[in-house]
Amino acid sequence: MRIEHDFLGELQVPDDAYYGVQTMRAIQNFQITGQHLDPDFIKAIATVKKAACLTNMETGRMPKEIGKAIVQAADEIIAGKMLDQFPLDPIQGGAGTSINMNMNEVLCNRALEILGYERGRYDIISPNNHANMAQSTNDAFPTSIKVCILRKAEILNDALINMAREFEKKGVEFEDVIKMGRTHLQDAVPITLGEEMTSYGSVVRRCIWRITRSLGALQNINMGGTAVGTGLNAEVEYIKKFPPILSDLVGFQFESAPNLIDTTNSTDCFAEVSSALKVSALSLIKIANDMRLMASGPRCGLNEIKLPPRQPGSSIMPGKVNPVIAEVLDQTCYHVIGNDLAVTMAVENGQLELNVMEPVLAFNLFNSFRYLTNAINTFTNLLLKDLKANKEQCQKWVDNSVGIITALLPHLGYEKCSAIAKEAYNQGTPVKEIIMREKLMTRERMEEILSPFEMTHPGIAGGKK
Amino acid sequence: MRIEHDFLGELQVPDDAYYGVQTMRAIQNFQITGQHLDPDFIKAIATVKKAACLTNMETGRMPKEIGKAIVQAADEIIAGKMLDQFPLDPIQGGAGTSINMNMNEVLCNRALEILGYERGRYDIISPNNHANMAQSTNDAFPTSIKVCILRKAEILNDALINMAREFEKKGVEFEDVIKMGRTHLQDAVPITLGEEMTSYGSVVRRCIWRITRSLGALQNINMGGTAVGTGLNAEVEYIKKFPPILSDLVGFQFESAPNLIDTTNSTDCFAEVSSALKVSALSLIKIANDMRLMASGPRCGLNEIKLPPRQPGSSIMPGKVNPVIAEVLDQTCYHVIGNDLAVTMAVENGQLELNVMEPVLAFNLFNSFRYLTNAINTFTNLLLKDLKANKEQCQKWVDNSVGIITALLPHLGYEKCSAIAKEAYNQGTPVKEIIMREKLMTRERMEEILSPFEMTHPGIAGGKK
Amino acid sequence: MRIEHDFLGELQVPDDAYYGVQTMRAIQNFQITGQHLDPDFIKAIATVKKAACLTNMETGRMPKEIGKAIVQAADEIIAGKMLDQFPLDPIQGGAGTSINMNMNEVLCNRALEILGYERGRYDIISPNNHANMAQSTNDAFPTSIKVCILRKAEILNDALINMAREFEKKGVEFEDVIKMGRTHLQDAVPITLGEEMTSYGSVVRRCIWRITRSLGALQNINMGGTAVGTGLNAEVEYIKKFPPILSDLVGFQFESAPNLIDTTNSTDCFAEVSSALKVSALSLIKIANDMRLMASGPRCGLNEIKLPPRQPGSSIMPGKVNPVIAEVLDQTCYHVIGNDLAVTMAVENGQLELNVMEPVLAFNLFNSFRYLTNAINTFTNLLLKDLKANKEQCQKWVDNSVGIITALLPHLGYEKCSAIAKEAYNQGTPVKEIIMREKLMTRERMEEILSPFEMTHPGIAGGKK
Amino acid sequence: MRIEHDFLGELQVPDDAYYGVQTMRAIQNFQITGQHLDPDFIKAIATVKKAACLTNMETGRMPKEIGKAIVQAADEIIAGKMLDQFPLDPIQGGAGTSINMNMNEVLCNRALEILGYERGRYDIISPNNHANMAQSTNDAFPTSIKVCILRKAEILNDALINMAREFEKKGVEFEDVIKMGRTHLQDAVPITLGEEMTSYGSVVRRCIWRITRSLGALQNINMGGTAVGTGLNAEVEYIKKFPPILSDLVGFQFESAPNLIDTTNSTDCFAEVSSALKVSALSLIKIANDMRLMASGPRCGLNEIKLPPRQPGSSIMPGKVNPVIAEVLDQTCYHVIGNDLAVTMAVENGQLELNVMEPVLAFNLFNSFRYLTNAINTFTNLLLKDLKANKEQCQKWVDNSVGIITALLPHLGYEKCSAIAKEAYNQGTPVKEIIMREKLMTRERMEEILSPFEMTHPGIAGGKK
Repeated sequence: MRIEHDFLGELQVPDDAYYGVQTMRAIQNFQITGQHLDPDFIKAIATVKKAACLTNMETGRMPKEIGKAIVQAADEIIAGKMLDQFPLDPIQGGAGTSINMNMNEVLCNRALEILGYERGRYDIISPNNHANMAQSTNDAFPTSIKVCILRKAEILNDALINMAREFEKKGVEFEDVIKMGRTHLQDAVPITLGEEMTSYGSVVRRCIWRITRSLGALQNINMGGTAVGTGLNAEVEYIKKFPPILSDLVGFQFESAPNLIDTTNSTDCFAEVSSALKVSALSLIKIANDMRLMASGPRCGLNEIKLPPRQPGSSIMPGKVNPVIAEVLDQTCYHVIGNDLAVTMAVENGQLELNVMEPVLAFNLFNSFRYLTNAINTFTNLLLKDLKANKEQCQKWVDNSVGIITALLPHLGYEKCSAIAKEAYNQGTPVKEIIMREKLMTRERMEEILSPFEMTHPGIAGGKK
Repeated sequence: MRIEHDFLGELQVPDDAYYGVQTMRAIQNFQITGQHLDPDFIKAIATVKKAACLTNMETGRMPKEIGKAIVQAADEIIAGKMLDQFPLDPIQGGAGTSINMNMNEVLCNRALEILGYERGRYDIISPNNHANMAQSTNDAFPTSIKVCILRKAEILNDALINMAREFEKKGVEFEDVIKMGRTHLQDAVPITLGEEMTSYGSVVRRCIWRITRSLGALQNINMGGTAVGTGLNAEVEYIKKFPPILSDLVGFQFESAPNLIDTTNSTDCFAEVSSALKVSALSLIKIANDMRLMASGPRCGLNEIKLPPRQPGSSIMPGKVNPVIAEVLDQTCYHVIGNDLAVTMAVENGQLELNVMEPVLAFNLFNSFRYLTNAINTFTNLLLKDLKANKEQCQKWVDNSVGIITALLPHLGYEKCSAIAKEAYNQGTPVKEIIMREKLMTRERMEEILSPFEMTHPGIAGGKK
Repeated sequence: MRIEHDFLGELQVPDDAYYGVQTMRAIQNFQITGQHLDPDFIKAIATVKKAACLTNMETGRMPKEIGKAIVQAADEIIAGKMLDQFPLDPIQGGAGTSINMNMNEVLCNRALEILGYERGRYDIISPNNHANMAQSTNDAFPTSIKVCILRKAEILNDALINMAREFEKKGVEFEDVIKMGRTHLQDAVPITLGEEMTSYGSVVRRCIWRITRSLGALQNINMGGTAVGTGLNAEVEYIKKFPPILSDLVGFQFESAPNLIDTTNSTDCFAEVSSALKVSALSLIKIANDMRLMASGPRCGLNEIKLPPRQPGSSIMPGKVNPVIAEVLDQTCYHVIGNDLAVTMAVENGQLELNVMEPVLAFNLFNSFRYLTNAINTFTNLLLKDLKANKEQCQKWVDNSVGIITALLPHLGYEKCSAIAKEAYNQGTPVKEIIMREKLMTRERMEEILSPFEMTHPGIAGGKK
Repeated sequence: MRIEHDFLGELQVPDDAYYGVQTMRAIQNFQITGQHLDPDFIKAIATVKKAACLTNMETGRMPKEIGKAIVQAADEIIAGKMLDQFPLDPIQGGAGTSINMNMNEVLCNRALEILGYERGRYDIISPNNHANMAQSTNDAFPTSIKVCILRKAEILNDALINMAREFEKKGVEFEDVIKMGRTHLQDAVPITLGEEMTSYGSVVRRCIWRITRSLGALQNINMGGTAVGTGLNAEVEYIKKFPPILSDLVGFQFESAPNLIDTTNSTDCFAEVSSALKVSALSLIKIANDMRLMASGPRCGLNEIKLPPRQPGSSIMPGKVNPVIAEVLDQTCYHVIGNDLAVTMAVENGQLELNVMEPVLAFNLFNSFRYLTNAINTFTNLLLKDLKANKEQCQKWVDNSVGIITALLPHLGYEKCSAIAKEAYNQGTPVKEIIMREKLMTRERMEEILSPFEMTHPGIAGGKK
């Protein structure tokens, strides 16, 4: 063990640890979840630190040799090394200061090592003066969250694109499967299973667009705002040069926010991203639930689609198979909606120059991205790709239905149609039989109006197309 | 118009208004919802004021004549008079001070009138010194909320009892309707519709019990705690005498809270009541959704029950009828769940000696009680009482099902049963036929095991009952 | 009373009512909130109906004379007449069918009257065949919600712009008020009150941008999709012509959605608007809370700003004035956040071809817009415009603080600065005195670094600007 | 690798795994969170399985030798062995079937091993027929959740008791610290810091009582209800004998639920526990926030209490120390509130005979218990125990205040007191000076009324006590 100190006193630190005294204090202070920081987040912080160091080298404030060593240390972390040197609990007090100092200490001690010094020689390279140069937790931390979210969003984006494409494929595959449309779970008018699938694809495309759009505000960063956004201890030069340097490193376009004070004390941009995930989760829930409804049965339900069987569905009921993949998407979405409320509470509680609740906010957002991405990929790969239509059953429902009467509305009027419907429901007489019996139109005309294609594509179809 | 003043200056008040200057200010300050105070709440406040006045008369601090006039004024409000004298918006700043002062002013001016004085003669009877004697908004307001909730809870309670009884009746009515049980919306094992109805009755009984239990904490009141719970300006005698006097007036058993400071700055008791409503709403949503599922069809769905048709279901689809009563219960429950979050946010934001967010909290809680009561009564009267079983369809599903295989599990083992189920699903062969063909047991034994009654009451039934 | 009938039977309707049998049924079925439809919504529906009628006249399906009468009836409603003919409860089952039919009946009966017929002569002009021509509740209802929201959003927008401008004015007014910045409610480094105000203006501008952006998806409408989005009973011509006609009437740019089925069964666009309001509410809560914190006191708190006194703050504490306007903004925001959860629950519960929960969704969204607009205007007019700085007190806090030490960090290093801070805190010695005593720099240099302007604008200021 | 099969086909299982084919499928199907099951939950399931096995031995259905081996296997898990044999993701489809089967497989394979057989010999001991005998996931899984929660609740209970006691100690320690009470963050009337602390203790005691009370419904279990609550495949004897056997094992009093069908398809009991945690979190947030407010400063805030410094508070501001322990309690509470919404969504989505969303519900509830317990202990040990009063500062605020005027209200009336307050605020004249100058009472009387003790304990104090 080596001895380190800060202005509160001395503390023992394991000899082989790259982290130092402030990390030690945080370990002792925060034992809440038993979980660790998201590796993507650790790398994002290292990236921001690297960009800051490079910028400080450009402005000339950072000594070259020290700067190079810090950059090398950051690069190692970005490459996945030393991840075990970040032992902190994601939920922690202090607005991320502990996480920021953990990174500063690791960078500093590794840089010392690179330059041939012992760990802990903060008189040579200091976590606060060098690794944190021209920075505060209050700018470096939220900027790192932004980098991390933008990266996670790319992966989620891929998952959503795959899902949308698969739905679009299913739309083509099932374009001839006429089925009963249902509103209020009550028989409505015919539709095709392909149209439903295409509509799900359309919803998913909108999720992509919504989430992407919510990311816009993340590209405004407050680096150089330092403690409260006034830019104390940061050069104008630094503030200007930082965003392009970070942009180069991560491939997103960052800009210095128009109002650094606002961007330092506001966290609404994170609530907005979380909302986009929440609203998308709502859309995914509907899709998953529709699958569960349409797959209900197999003997005593709608039985319109066949989900690939993924596992026995019961410890007691032999042969039972459940829509477990749709269910796990639902459950993940509920979790994401819960996370959004945690984010909401955190964002609500900013005060004056800072929102100190950022750690719990970041924790929930990162989890939402990861879980949602996993659940979407699971759904696409284990359910959607092998989804089959039960065309016969779909047709059977339509043949048995009364709802086709609606297609006759422009020809017979609501009053007459209602009477036919009533008879059909009450006596069980098929709609077509009543029409013929009452000679309401020629058979030819009736069949034309009630043709499956006409009924499911009337607005865009036939001669009209 | 008459001129009144407070320490901020003078203001014109309509000559015929019983309210005064502070109400006027609040009218000008708070124009948010366009709604008015719940009449039940106005009466509850009047009741608390009456109790306070009676108590002050008992301690001797309140002059008899003035006290009698104030009590008479309060009685008139309790009887439903002068409700138009409370023009304030339910969402308002000031922790209810405006509402409290509105009541103080009305009581005071009406009391002046009773004694033959002009309105506004606060030198004779003062809103602050007399109507508010030994009180603060910070004790009188939350106490009034408690009285109001307890009354509303009684009405909700009646609604829930009616609902539970109706379900219990349906449980008896449908006890012979064997139907397919479903888990994951997939065919499971038989159950009776009566058992389902009885189980809903059981859920509703638990709602009653849950809500009732949540009311317990409301009976602890902080009257006499005054501004911050220390009891400044209130006599010990007053604190002791108030609860039994209020209890006499309203018929609930109130007690002085063990810690008046806690009870003045805490609002968790209201969050608890709201939670009880929310959890009950969740149970009601499931019930309503089960109705919607079982009534799905009529031709292309489960069609196991028949809801009474209440209105045409579509502006375009002739003959369509939707489960609108179940839907409106769902929607009301969503509203109640939303209200609970508003309450949650309000309760979260107490600070030091007070939670100033009580008005929005009370507004949401009162609405939740009223809306929920109405939706439950609507459901009971317009859906449940006329609910019919579609016994034939229920039987048809069971006859067609494979899930009955589960009953054979203890006799044939999971492995064998799975094989039978697989064949039944894949070849469409009835389960019984396979068993007979494979000579797995005698027909007599098989029929006994698979008898509807045995299957739906095995744990409690047969020789075992 | 006149007798009307639908396919469920006959019902009495008041003779002088423009509404008819289906409205009557809905009145009997839905008694939940005791409230009525938002007048803006009634007008929005009438506008959509007018546009549909005009489009049907253009396609030639609607007889000219009848069409003209329906348009005139719609224009009267848009002008504010007959609003009392819409007696329905906003929370109702049936996905808005009752509201749609209420409008169809009123339009129809008024049109009959215009043409000289008796009310109820639906054989001549029919609610379903004419007023609802080529429509379903499932396209006309959500389209009307969209029109209504877009209009309400304009009014909210005005409120936000006023608020932002006022903050920007305060930013200029208070640009010389140096005050202590606080993070974690702990003394941080100096900032100006003007900078804070400007940053609030920046937040509010972002709210405007966020809400505006969320409205984008509302311009995609599903008119002509009819029952399930397939366009059954709607001509291609109608689908194409409707959006520009509606756009002309309301001044927003509508387009036919790329996928009518998706747009018919999805309600995520409403969740997105609600989310934008929720996130904006979070930002407003922070602003209101900052006001409450800075105005705390007047003797025993921060006392940095003076809110205009709006009403006496206590029924018991003489002279007390509370930040009631900031509080009512907070409360309204909590309400909006609660409403957002109700919307979330409603959006979650779409199934297959429709989300039948739209009424409760619309009710909550409309309320959120109206309440939020009112609360923002209240805040701007009754608090912000008359907000004063307490410059002396602000200066006193800064003079007394240790946090200015941060400005010396680049010059003395973190270690040294920490030691100075520690002594300052423990001994009460002013920071400047320690620096001079220890001869750490010249007085001139020190004063330059610690000049108020330098400290609060370092990144953009001085020679650096 | 060994080959195992189920009715969907064959699969390779690691040779040394105690789990089998169904666990393998679940591993492949559910990769969402990357987390594993809570060890407490694994042990709770093993306990329920043990109880079931013992009951089956008593009813005679379970062969003795096999039963003994299964019990031994369960005991080993309860003792903490084989925890690595439960590799499943806590969020999973299938209503817990995978977790249940994972346990069944591990018990079975370990039992086989104990009896000298190879793993996978399910013809001898079967996961479904033996380990799961007379059970379904649908009764064993929720019962296990109940056992797990009851245990976690005990630990949380301890944490809350410690916190309450510590507040009660502080109540005594600070009973002489007179300070300014604040409502609306505005100066109100004096109170003692001890009274505040005691009131927090009172709140915490209520949290204990609330959570304990919410656990009541968990003692009703549905064991023997099996698949849908009808008790199919479970003997009446088994249903009766199980609860006392489980009670013996875990030390809580379980009973067979009065309605097994209700208890199988309802999850409201879990929502109720989650609500109790949420409401308690709200109370804890207020406490943490009050600490943060009172500790604000140290130079530019209230500075009434001194929190123990736990870590440097800033990477840039030397000497800064933040209330990180209070902050982490806040953040944990936000997380718990978010979890409660996830639970709410899960509970909302039960359908017919089951709520298949139980896994996400259990995951969130378990996390809420664990995180909350940790955060409370952190708060008690790292903040509360070393909390100090800043008595001088508290006194200074009181001396400087005008709010003491309220104590004179019963003596001088509201009107006169308001005038004095106004002068005091506007001219800065001390209240006492004005009273003496205007000769409103003798100095002796004034000092008596305004004595610190009288003012803070008037209702219970002086001759009155």
